[in-house]
Amino acid sequence: MTQTVESGRTQAGTRVDAWLTQFTEALNAGDADRAASLFADESYWRDLVSFTWNLVTVEGPAEVSELVSADAARQVAPVSFEVSGEPSEADGITEAWLKFETAIGRGTGHLRLNADDKAWTFLTTLDEIKGHEEPASPNADRPFGTEHGANPDRVTWAEQREAEAAELGYTRQPEVVVIGGGQGGIALGARLRQLGIETIIVERNEKPGDSWRKRYKSLALHDPVWYDHLPYLKFPDNWPVFSPKDKIGDWLEMYAKVMELNYWGSTTAQSATYDEASGQWNVVVDRAGETVTLKPRQLVFALGVSGKPNIPSVPGEDVFQGEIQHSSQHPGPDAYKGKKVVVIGSNNSAFDICGSLWEVGADVTMVQRSSTHIIRSETLMTYALGDLYSEEAVRNGVDTYTADMIFASLPYRIMHDFQKPAYDKAREVDADFYRRLEEAGFDLDFGDDDSGLFMKYLRRGSGYYIDVGAAELVADGKVKLAKGQITELTEKEVVLDDGTRLEADLVVWATGYRSMNGLAADIIGQDVADKVGKVWGLGSDTTKDPGPWEGEQRNMWKPTQQENLWFHGGNLHQSRFYSLYLALQLKARAVGIPTPVHRLQESHHTS
Amino acid sequence: MTQTVESGRTQAGTRVDAWLTQFTEALNAGDADRAASLFADESYWRDLVSFTWNLVTVEGPAEVSELVSADAARQVAPVSFEVSGEPSEADGITEAWLKFETAIGRGTGHLRLNADDKAWTFLTTLDEIKGHEEPASPNADRPFGTEHGANPDRVTWAEQREAEAAELGYTRQPEVVVIGGGQGGIALGARLRQLGIETIIVERNEKPGDSWRKRYKSLALHDPVWYDHLPYLKFPDNWPVFSPKDKIGDWLEMYAKVMELNYWGSTTAQSATYDEASGQWNVVVDRAGETVTLKPRQLVFALGVSGKPNIPSVPGEDVFQGEIQHSSQHPGPDAYKGKKVVVIGSNNSAFDICGSLWEVGADVTMVQRSSTHIIRSETLMTYALGDLYSEEAVRNGVDTYTADMIFASLPYRIMHDFQKPAYDKAREVDADFYRRLEEAGFDLDFGDDDSGLFMKYLRRGSGYYIDVGAAELVADGKVKLAKGQITELTEKEVVLDDGTRLEADLVVWATGYRSMNGLAADIIGQDVADKVGKVWGLGSDTTKDPGPWEGEQRNMWKPTQQENLWFHGGNLHQSRFYSLYLALQLKARAVGIPTPVHRLQESHHTS
Repeated sequence: MTQTVESGRTQAGTRVDAWLTQFTEALNAGDADRAASLFADESYWRDLVSFTWNLVTVEGPAEVSELVSADAARQVAPVSFEVSGEPSEADGITEAWLKFETAIGRGTGHLRLNADDKAWTFLTTLDEIKGHEEPASPNADRPFGTEHGANPDRVTWAEQREAEAAELGYTRQPEVVVIGGGQGGIALGARLRQLGIETIIVERNEKPGDSWRKRYKSLALHDPVWYDHLPYLKFPDNWPVFSPKDKIGDWLEMYAKVMELNYWGSTTAQSATYDEASGQWNVVVDRAGETVTLKPRQLVFALGVSGKPNIPSVPGEDVFQGEIQHSSQHPGPDAYKGKKVVVIGSNNSAFDICGSLWEVGADVTMVQRSSTHIIRSETLMTYALGDLYSEEAVRNGVDTYTADMIFASLPYRIMHDFQKPAYDKAREVDADFYRRLEEAGFDLDFGDDDSGLFMKYLRRGSGYYIDVGAAELVADGKVKLAKGQITELTEKEVVLDDGTRLEADLVVWATGYRSMNGLAADIIGQDVADKVGKVWGLGSDTTKDPGPWEGEQRNMWKPTQQENLWFHGGNLHQSRFYSLYLALQLKARAVGIPTPVHRLQESHHTS
Repeated sequence: MTQTVESGRTQAGTRVDAWLTQFTEALNAGDADRAASLFADESYWRDLVSFTWNLVTVEGPAEVSELVSADAARQVAPVSFEVSGEPSEADGITEAWLKFETAIGRGTGHLRLNADDKAWTFLTTLDEIKGHEEPASPNADRPFGTEHGANPDRVTWAEQREAEAAELGYTRQPEVVVIGGGQGGIALGARLRQLGIETIIVERNEKPGDSWRKRYKSLALHDPVWYDHLPYLKFPDNWPVFSPKDKIGDWLEMYAKVMELNYWGSTTAQSATYDEASGQWNVVVDRAGETVTLKPRQLVFALGVSGKPNIPSVPGEDVFQGEIQHSSQHPGPDAYKGKKVVVIGSNNSAFDICGSLWEVGADVTMVQRSSTHIIRSETLMTYALGDLYSEEAVRNGVDTYTADMIFASLPYRIMHDFQKPAYDKAREVDADFYRRLEEAGFDLDFGDDDSGLFMKYLRRGSGYYIDVGAAELVADGKVKLAKGQITELTEKEVVLDDGTRLEADLVVWATGYRSMNGLAADIIGQDVADKVGKVWGLGSDTTKDPGPWEGEQRNMWKPTQQENLWFHGGNLHQSRFYSLYLALQLKARAVGIPTPVHRLQESHHTS
């Protein structure tokens, strides 16, 4: 219960005020020990750019002390904090939303105090850099759009856009080149345009949205609309819960146009080398047959978690007489009615493709190579997402921005504890569903520590299926199930390691994608890719996410071991949320603000 | 001041509650006299579709009585009203926002009570028809977007869209055909799609937005962004205050795509005849060279106030050796540097064109034929629009919907009284500006009754310039001014009725547009156009707006003397706001709800 004391301030509010006063004094005095003393032994300060020029979560008083002593934090003094709204208290934890201002910028924060008035979790995020606010900022003006008065040198908007399209990358170099024009590149491009940073987005497909359009025809987003908004322009209220792939493709296309992105479609990046002397990249691209060398200061890979297909090599590929496709190449089921299809894999794409092939009357076998986490879409929406991303959440005042910030306020180190209950609940409400899958021989898991979908996504980006119906086909035996590893292909068969032989007219490798730095290696070279190291994962020491513990996703949206090289991407939520922090880091560098990075990401793994 | 009585309800609230209780009882009892007795002698009930199946403002108790006795009002009983928020009282007038429900639908209303607790103004607007709510309604669900589960008959979103594009108008007929694909047709099309009414929009230009793109290059919207939002999808917060024409063109293009409109570009309507027996129109169109006959039930003209150019015919056109253009054909100034240009007219387009020609160094003369109302853009924003449509209004809680409703709550009969003060203020703050224009010989007016821009727009749609800078050029003499009527053209001259001879390489007729029914006559025939009568205007008996008094804009968005023929259009505000009421009328007819129209528009003028 929230209790009101005489001053009109709640007890919770008074306690937060007191903590903030001490913390602010400590920061402004550069008193690292005093700042550290305000944090509990088990505590987490997650900073997104505002105090570290990095995405960092530090743990415990000693690491807080290091953060406060570092150049980045010293640079931003003096700081001031104020509480937004009224703090609340429940189960011994007091929570407050904060706004803060530093010498450099303005930000939003969140604080959880324990019963001893020590910080348990603390989030600080940079919203904007002073003097470089976006036009949509409350601290800036909307663009005027036209020019009133008579001006013999008038240049219209259309003329400006045409000139920019003709000049940028040819007679004038962009500050940033983004390789990859899916949702990640597009969202970042929109942010950078608003920050006035000239950017070219390079995309191998012809048009924005094609990376969705070209996938199998039954594909729809597995995340609901409330989770998927892009920056600045929300989906309208009549937008479907789960966007069909072509509809999200159309949205991305119009979004790129409306946001005035310099989007180079039909363009492939061939190589990128960094010239230390000039501090510029040489990025060679093939633009619809024309070789162009771009010389940006900053290079961002936004190739997505689903970048380059991972296609295993097995003996017999040359003798197999049927078709072989990666899931990303699968055109949809229509041509395969009555055909025998073997789908290798048991994650999202495998299930979706098996389901749509069964629908048209193909004879489909799924080959499960390792256990899979399956969660029914409806169950996921209700128990794992509903509090933050749903119509009900919006009605309760939790809009997408608030939901993003609540999610961001939970440190990755303890996030699995917050995730587990939803999946425990799923096993309870869907017990019969899971039992039938297991009876059909399907190997299930809920992650190494039973923490479910999001943790698997954040740790390894694979190993799960959000069930939108195809799991029943496996449980029913309508889609046949085989298990094991592929040892070879023959003229007409897929052969498994237990000797099983599966006749096939079509083999679909639903075997996922290579990690982003592996994909980048094709462009930046293996040496630079190795220097940067593995991209993605938390270092949780669970399957496919080797340690050491990082506290943030490796190399994502933050400085890497290669100067002026960045990685961006992920789902729509991440593309929306983290594009801001990446854009602010790029903006600071573009305008020459010193950016001493605290705890630069180290490289521990090359892939 | 708002006073609170013991019950916790304010005095204002109590008085509104009492009025609503009596009014509801009277309506539900069909007691027209009692309902009428609740209205002041000078009073206005403006109904948009909810009680009249029409757009009607009735005046005084006798007309209220007629309304309540009419079939339309009797059909919608029982009704219930509730107050939204807390009523307020100022200067003897008590105001309240209302929500109401009838047998047919749900609506929003507004009430102003005078000091005697009689209604002075009363607004009732239909929001939705029960059982036919839009997906974005609080009373309906968002579309799901995809179909979970396995379905051998699955049709994807893209397949549905392709099939619709192939079939509609060929093997299956639309319910509605909209002629004109500018902002009006597009906004209406979006509403109809959400209401599930199959619609084809016919547009002579190739793409949505081209009607803006093809106009003179310096054009930007003269209305600010807060006034211009389209239904469902607001401009983002970083959108410019005044959209450049090509940018609004891009927005309309993407909006039409995202809203999934069946938009037939490069298509001209050739004829439309109504078949009484079948209750269908035969609309013959040329679709990129192919003749297609569409057979919709409903036909909507959305040709805009700016539809067909009004090009005077003067002697000597055949001997004139220079170029002659209507303002809508003017490509912009670039080709006319150093040329002599005569622009006939002194309204918006004339000024914009003169200004941009002067900017490139043309020798420009404006010919003023009659007095013009000029208001500086900044002054208009500050004094006439700012309370309703501005960043400050949004900060004060007046979003675009609220602003639209406040504007709608002011009856047209007395609107000029609300408008005058802003223009009195303009004459005060811009006294020097107006003095200099008059000294330059320019004939100014503020409307017949000094009520300014909006009243001129609503009454006649012409006669004004929102100054974005070109007026100074006339005041300075940089753009030369001549006055009078054109009597003839010679080989190299424009000759005026006072004998003035103006040398010209280019003559621009900035002479406005023909009225919508005149334009429609080319398609529906003069007899049907005459039966319907003049479109636009209030019947104010002021210049170019002959009486009798109508109370609403003639024939706009409401049933006409021609069954199943409708007119839609206007600026972005009107396209947004009135498209809802037109769409609801079309929906009711599509689903067979009886729609007895109260006070069907009569025809008094043929043009």
